[in-house]
Amino acid sequence: MNVRMICRVLGLILLTLAALMALPLITGLLYGENVSNFLIAMAVSAALGFVLTRFKPTRSSFFAREGYVIVGLGWIAMSLIGALPFVLSGSIPSYIDAVFETVSGFTTTGASILTDFSVMGRADMFWRCFTHWVGGMGVLVFMMAVLPMGEEHFMHIMRAEVPGPTVGKLVPRARRTASILYTIYIAMTLLETALLCLGGMSLYDALVHSFATAGTGGFSSLPNSIGGFHSPYIELVVATFMLLFGVNFNLYFLLFLGRVKEVFKSEELHWYAAIVAGAVVLITLGISGRYGFVTALRHAYFNVATIISTTGFGTENFVLWPEYCKWILVLLMLAGACAGSTGGGLKISRVAILCKAAGAEIRTMIRPRSVTRVQLDGRRVEAGTVRATLLFFALFIFLLLLFSFLISFDGYDIATSFTAALSCLSNIGPGMGLVGPTGNFAIFSAPSKMLLSLAMLIGRLEIYPILVLFAPHTWKN
Amino acid sequence: MNVRMICRVLGLILLTLAALMALPLITGLLYGENVSNFLIAMAVSAALGFVLTRFKPTRSSFFAREGYVIVGLGWIAMSLIGALPFVLSGSIPSYIDAVFETVSGFTTTGASILTDFSVMGRADMFWRCFTHWVGGMGVLVFMMAVLPMGEEHFMHIMRAEVPGPTVGKLVPRARRTASILYTIYIAMTLLETALLCLGGMSLYDALVHSFATAGTGGFSSLPNSIGGFHSPYIELVVATFMLLFGVNFNLYFLLFLGRVKEVFKSEELHWYAAIVAGAVVLITLGISGRYGFVTALRHAYFNVATIISTTGFGTENFVLWPEYCKWILVLLMLAGACAGSTGGGLKISRVAILCKAAGAEIRTMIRPRSVTRVQLDGRRVEAGTVRATLLFFALFIFLLLLFSFLISFDGYDIATSFTAALSCLSNIGPGMGLVGPTGNFAIFSAPSKMLLSLAMLIGRLEIYPILVLFAPHTWKN
Repeated sequence: MNVRMICRVLGLILLTLAALMALPLITGLLYGENVSNFLIAMAVSAALGFVLTRFKPTRSSFFAREGYVIVGLGWIAMSLIGALPFVLSGSIPSYIDAVFETVSGFTTTGASILTDFSVMGRADMFWRCFTHWVGGMGVLVFMMAVLPMGEEHFMHIMRAEVPGPTVGKLVPRARRTASILYTIYIAMTLLETALLCLGGMSLYDALVHSFATAGTGGFSSLPNSIGGFHSPYIELVVATFMLLFGVNFNLYFLLFLGRVKEVFKSEELHWYAAIVAGAVVLITLGISGRYGFVTALRHAYFNVATIISTTGFGTENFVLWPEYCKWILVLLMLAGACAGSTGGGLKISRVAILCKAAGAEIRTMIRPRSVTRVQLDGRRVEAGTVRATLLFFALFIFLLLLFSFLISFDGYDIATSFTAALSCLSNIGPGMGLVGPTGNFAIFSAPSKMLLSLAMLIGRLEIYPILVLFAPHTWKN
Repeated sequence: MNVRMICRVLGLILLTLAALMALPLITGLLYGENVSNFLIAMAVSAALGFVLTRFKPTRSSFFAREGYVIVGLGWIAMSLIGALPFVLSGSIPSYIDAVFETVSGFTTTGASILTDFSVMGRADMFWRCFTHWVGGMGVLVFMMAVLPMGEEHFMHIMRAEVPGPTVGKLVPRARRTASILYTIYIAMTLLETALLCLGGMSLYDALVHSFATAGTGGFSSLPNSIGGFHSPYIELVVATFMLLFGVNFNLYFLLFLGRVKEVFKSEELHWYAAIVAGAVVLITLGISGRYGFVTALRHAYFNVATIISTTGFGTENFVLWPEYCKWILVLLMLAGACAGSTGGGLKISRVAILCKAAGAEIRTMIRPRSVTRVQLDGRRVEAGTVRATLLFFALFIFLLLLFSFLISFDGYDIATSFTAALSCLSNIGPGMGLVGPTGNFAIFSAPSKMLLSLAMLIGRLEIYPILVLFAPHTWKN
């Protein structure tokens, strides 16, 4: 293990974090708030970062293992220090609660323990929503795009931080790719901000909600989330952008290069569109008796978008909807958004690979001598990728059951424990039962909040970077 | 597809079914009941069977495909005709209900729609519990042991009917093996019957409960199940036999051959014992405040045994236990008993292979150049078996979610829909919520009962024999 290299990169992460905190600091100054909490947090982050960057790597050896450890430890460090402003200002007095909220921010989960929104100043609220934006595209990918570092290092870190079964085409010329991706990300965020301002939102509200949409996070500055604006236009804009940020960013990259045909040939996009359309139709049918057709369609569209993109903004309390509508939402929670998007969950391409692998297995059983291949986008999916996808799924379900079981010691019902664990592991935000859209994660005990924070990190980093930290093999030489 | 061969074997199955109905018929005669329902059902089964056996196979070609189709169609035919006595006697007036109850019997699930036990005569009740015994070891394996048929045919049918990731050592000299297995099965059933008679049960009650234990089914002649006997001795005997019938029958076979060392080296047995012991300890701790230590231990032992062996007998309403105890039971429902036993669920050996494969994947990530193998019982598990196990798990979870969703149209809460689907797919019997130990599947609509019947068949036959029937590839030549 190249410990010096790991320390150095962790130091760079903390320096980046200190720099990012300048934005809420400026916001606080503009609104005339006390920003000493951000000054202290920045000083701590910068000082620690400075000390860690003093470690000069004696070897340049850098393998997958180092990539996982850096990403795992980096995200934990960011969360532990990113939580300081909330504790220092007193807007979230408990450190465990503040860490939960910050992890929920960076991992773009959007699960909250905040019950009283009035105690949080504008700067703190800005930081809370800005963590979604930072975590959405990945702070390490951002750092790598800006700082000088070898392509090989970049590849290992990108593999560990970017969600989805394969990073694929993005790897060659990675630094340039990362800059283009961030440019697209910024442009889309600003477009949404402008559209929300046109709908009558203040610039501040438009910005924080655009951050939360871009990261598919779901924190809102209003206790009633997007529902608090009472504007179908705003709901439509936010829902559409949630779906757009749930699309594989490779496709925007291809659009940027003018390769439009390839974009519309993407199988994952077809699956995504079909699942969204199917879910919207089924839920509209289920709730039109309650709201009338047009309002039902609006609520169905918004809530399908918020759940499949794993954002978690709320407009309506879907816990009151018919049971089968809730089941559709649970299935969408599991499936999640596209690979290479800012969304969470299993990812649509994994679901597609799983379905195709099952079909191939059944065909092989019927005709053992025929050759059956799993194909995606017209190309063969390698056996190793199929195996890794199957294992990922198995681990995901194991962890889901494990976390459900561990938090069940708090004594809440099966639906609450299960959907709280699912919501955190899939980085969605709301679950069902007591953690539904009108509920809150404040009900959990401190150990459960720590466990759920871990679950959110495991979900965002797609299991391995966190599990690798716990494996004794990692630390042996 | 060798249609003539399939028809002929289906005919043999129906003739066997007619012969098996002689036992409840004799029981009815002994108790002086009207047995015309059994006479008619036997006549129908025998006549259909006779017609089908008239098909003479023109080819002897017999592949995996034919094996799956015969087992899939055979079990469906048995259930459809096995339900006739209940409808003809009026003890279950609705044919859909009767089919549900019969499928539940043959698949050794033990989920019941029966709400009024007083309407069912002794012969009908005998048949209801006897279906567990027939389905436990497999009617086709029984038939193959008795009737003349080629070894190759036998292998394909045994692969399709016997649960577990690999049939392994049993395949050579299959017919002799099958006779020995049935001898052990009969001996253990009679031993339990004798021990229950010693505890004060009538011979009739002892027999029907031994049938239900041997098949790990869970039907009881009493509305309050084993709890209705109010005897700790009987609970202890039944619990111990449930655990014994959940053990891989290969091990009894090895014991029979005197290879005791190999038996105690079985890793699956170690996992099984460890999981049972761990679950009993944790649950005892959770409920000793409610019952006192000794009674808590007794209830924990019985209910862990009834759930992990997927039998489903009840003594206490565990829905009232602490949430984490319920989660332990849900996890046991998923895990299930050992491969090659009469129990259901995923099977312990699959869980072990999944855990080991995940560990190997993480080690490979940390050290990509090291060779990591999945081993069980000191031997390497082939990559194909690992892949098949992972796919089986993925399909199991997909089907679990699909059936939960489809029955949610009935409008019951998430816990009820989910655990009803899990209970049927794992062949357990009770779930949580409205289908808990004191609940009943009578609450579901007719379409849901048909879906759950399908789920039970899918669970018992380990997915593929039923899915293959629905695959268009199967029926093309």
